[in-house]
Amino acid sequence: MTPDPNRVLIFDTTLRDGEQSPGCSMTQAEKLRVARALADLGVDVIEAGFPAASRGDWEAVNAVAREVQGPVIAGLARCTRADIEQAARALEPAPRRRLHVFLATSAIHRQYKLNMAQDEIVRSAVEAVQIAREYCDDVEFSPEDASRTELDFLARVVEATIAAGATTINIPDTVGYTVPDEFGELFRYLRQNVRGIDRVRLSVHCHDDLGMAVANSLTAVVAGARQIECTINGIGERAGNCALEEVVMALATRAQFFNLQTGIQTNRLYPVSRLISSITGQPIPRNKAVIGENAFAHESGIHQHGMLQNRMTYEIMRPEDVGLARSNLVLGKHSGRHAFRDRVRELGFELDELELNRVFEEFKALADRKKELFDGDIEALVLRAEGSAHGPWSLTGLEVGSQLGAPATATVKLRHADGRAPSCKASGDGPVDAAYKAIEQGTGLAVKVRKFEVHAVTIGEDAQGETVVYVDYNGRSYRGSSVSTDIIEASCKALLEVLNRIEQSQLGARTGKRDAAPAAAKTAV
Amino acid sequence: MTPDPNRVLIFDTTLRDGEQSPGCSMTQAEKLRVARALADLGVDVIEAGFPAASRGDWEAVNAVAREVQGPVIAGLARCTRADIEQAARALEPAPRRRLHVFLATSAIHRQYKLNMAQDEIVRSAVEAVQIAREYCDDVEFSPEDASRTELDFLARVVEATIAAGATTINIPDTVGYTVPDEFGELFRYLRQNVRGIDRVRLSVHCHDDLGMAVANSLTAVVAGARQIECTINGIGERAGNCALEEVVMALATRAQFFNLQTGIQTNRLYPVSRLISSITGQPIPRNKAVIGENAFAHESGIHQHGMLQNRMTYEIMRPEDVGLARSNLVLGKHSGRHAFRDRVRELGFELDELELNRVFEEFKALADRKKELFDGDIEALVLRAEGSAHGPWSLTGLEVGSQLGAPATATVKLRHADGRAPSCKASGDGPVDAAYKAIEQGTGLAVKVRKFEVHAVTIGEDAQGETVVYVDYNGRSYRGSSVSTDIIEASCKALLEVLNRIEQSQLGARTGKRDAAPAAAKTAV
Repeated sequence: MTPDPNRVLIFDTTLRDGEQSPGCSMTQAEKLRVARALADLGVDVIEAGFPAASRGDWEAVNAVAREVQGPVIAGLARCTRADIEQAARALEPAPRRRLHVFLATSAIHRQYKLNMAQDEIVRSAVEAVQIAREYCDDVEFSPEDASRTELDFLARVVEATIAAGATTINIPDTVGYTVPDEFGELFRYLRQNVRGIDRVRLSVHCHDDLGMAVANSLTAVVAGARQIECTINGIGERAGNCALEEVVMALATRAQFFNLQTGIQTNRLYPVSRLISSITGQPIPRNKAVIGENAFAHESGIHQHGMLQNRMTYEIMRPEDVGLARSNLVLGKHSGRHAFRDRVRELGFELDELELNRVFEEFKALADRKKELFDGDIEALVLRAEGSAHGPWSLTGLEVGSQLGAPATATVKLRHADGRAPSCKASGDGPVDAAYKAIEQGTGLAVKVRKFEVHAVTIGEDAQGETVVYVDYNGRSYRGSSVSTDIIEASCKALLEVLNRIEQSQLGARTGKRDAAPAAAKTAV
Repeated sequence: MTPDPNRVLIFDTTLRDGEQSPGCSMTQAEKLRVARALADLGVDVIEAGFPAASRGDWEAVNAVAREVQGPVIAGLARCTRADIEQAARALEPAPRRRLHVFLATSAIHRQYKLNMAQDEIVRSAVEAVQIAREYCDDVEFSPEDASRTELDFLARVVEATIAAGATTINIPDTVGYTVPDEFGELFRYLRQNVRGIDRVRLSVHCHDDLGMAVANSLTAVVAGARQIECTINGIGERAGNCALEEVVMALATRAQFFNLQTGIQTNRLYPVSRLISSITGQPIPRNKAVIGENAFAHESGIHQHGMLQNRMTYEIMRPEDVGLARSNLVLGKHSGRHAFRDRVRELGFELDELELNRVFEEFKALADRKKELFDGDIEALVLRAEGSAHGPWSLTGLEVGSQLGAPATATVKLRHADGRAPSCKASGDGPVDAAYKAIEQGTGLAVKVRKFEVHAVTIGEDAQGETVVYVDYNGRSYRGSSVSTDIIEASCKALLEVLNRIEQSQLGARTGKRDAAPAAAKTAV
């Protein structure tokens, strides 16, 4: 295994470690869209999911393996034959595939989670790697909670799994506990004390609980790791994982220091980040590194004060390096299909003819309502083109009235695919509350709204807002969103998306499409 | 200067480097509230502002110096006598005060920003430190863009300013460019090559452009720095500054590794973080380290799957360590003043009797509309108790009507302190747009809404939402916010807050209260 020694592989786990964090679950269609965007971005490995966790996970991994070209497709498995076989079957269609098996090694996990002695851990890990190798030449092993594992025992597990055939050894800082100085030492220790370590690719997987996921990943790379596991926007369990866009731009910006390359097309970072933000309904903080609204100083402050300086005085990256379009070109209702397609491309999206036609129709409809369309409007149209759950319920009428100091009223007309067309009137505390009560009456589905948010997607007096609603129903959490210039309309459509998701998942449940996740399925690496 | 060698000072610059970033500007009342919260939190130094930047900044620094007890109060100044004198006068009332002077030292800043040769830089810095020492025994010097400065020149500047009387030398990574390995080396180099360095306190000031502000700060501390400059929630220019809550919790959680202490009351971190979020209108991302909604695993996932494990399997901090109340105790309209006060205290707020009475009245009014009140409701009440711009305009009537596919209409009744009571009707694209047009007609102020957001502050069917609106007016940016269960009402009140701020600042301008910021005032350290 001696390709370019200065090449660092980017292993994206947005669809596995990212997706399993609260509020980030995705439908299969959304996962496919993300996987295609990751392939275009140039990631080396896509961890598509944890096939044994649920039927839905299995099918999503299988769909990605079937349909996404380019990167290696990986699936996670615990150290059991059943898990590994399920993962192997799900990955079968992929031309290049990887089985990723994991087992916790730290004393606290051995005692409280696994109730296994050191010898049992080694035996189980070795056996799992051997089983995985029956199905696949590309096998990654992760000693979960490695950073809290006794160094000598960690070395023993790593050595044994290499001997058993692992081709990549990943060192996870599962609970985001380590600091750079210490973590670099850990990698140096392993490289000095583990026989066969030069035969495998060393990998790093960091969490951000103390805000150091990026720095810890880079320290590992300096100490010899040549694969970084990360997620777009740093989504993931608790404080999240190492953010792909940050670690990649650190390697690129400080290329002279690191002297390492990745295969990432950095000018696609911004569109992919926006895609994940839109799908998960989690806005990008204004002061987020690399992709936040304030990340580039030229947008504000200094340049507003008219200082004509070298841009590099305060900017270490250029907006165009990460795919942030500098111009905010305005389109309107007289803009043609050609101009629209060009703009969509410049924003970093690739649509096929069918998708382009559909989005262009929506563009024309929006342009009739809105005088000027900005990049944000177009992004919203494209991002919403897939992903929303089209489903049995749709909104055909909505009338609201409200007066300060009195309950608001709403009349809602709905249509269901089975022909029902209820019309309901309700009053409530504000028009959204009233409309939601009317929708509950009309659909007969009683839900509990857990969270309600509106994010602006564009600027201007007729700005579009994206309403995102989180709902609890039967112990599960659902998310729906909708974009409109009318906040009440968007709120109703977002709730209907949730109700459509609920109906679809109930259908799925009846045909056995969704299994309950096994108890350990939420295990974090 | 040999107090406890293991004590790291926390220098909070939320009110200076944080406040000057886009979207984070605060009124003087808000700054005072933040400064008091920082004093309660136990920070060692509060950088209250940049007195020479504007009259408003000067007055805010002066008010903090007058009214906030405990921490050292610092003010920033460029290397000019005028700046230093203004800062010294503003700080005069403070029992403990610090003058913080800065000058850029990197080649790119010398050439493109300052147009000064190396010798001129040294001369100017030395002179400024000497002037500052005329006013104050506690003088900090920052070589701006230190991490991109030639090491030997940096050492020369630092040595000269120490000789001139600086008592703290701060090393800023102004553009967020450095990485831990390199930054540790820089500190070690200075400690080996600068005469007199052991006489001063070394400080570190990091930005997060590549996601490494916390790690770089900690590396500096390992290499000998004993002051960390940081901001609550990591607000600050571009990607922001080192986040106080992250760096403090890293030192606390990894105390065995670092063997260093701070004076921070960590159980006040969460309330202070919420305060800053509320005042700046910038929500805390769900996956934010330490204080984000997902930061503690027990809230979700793993524990939901019913695994009874040692909590430390996946949690390296306890929620109560950072002041996150575990219970979500529900209060209602029958809750008494006593229960309310207890809850407010448990949430980490200290209110005087007058404030408590006012907030309790609002609590009773809200309890009449809302069945159950959660911690988030109470936080919102307390946080809104100050900070909103009470001003000439108030909302006395609001009536909206909207129908799918047709323009919405809104009738708005307003009252101005001067006796005007306009009532206006307008139609628009959705009820918010219609109401905003009516408000513009009624007030005669034409504004440009740049951004509109709604964040949930509580859960449940009658959840309260906080509407935040960003407006451009005459080339300046204003922010207003309001909390209500009725989204349209909250939107109108948020806009009125903006209009009140505009009127107040116009009044201020007429009486000479606000100077234009000097060209270099936005300079970042």
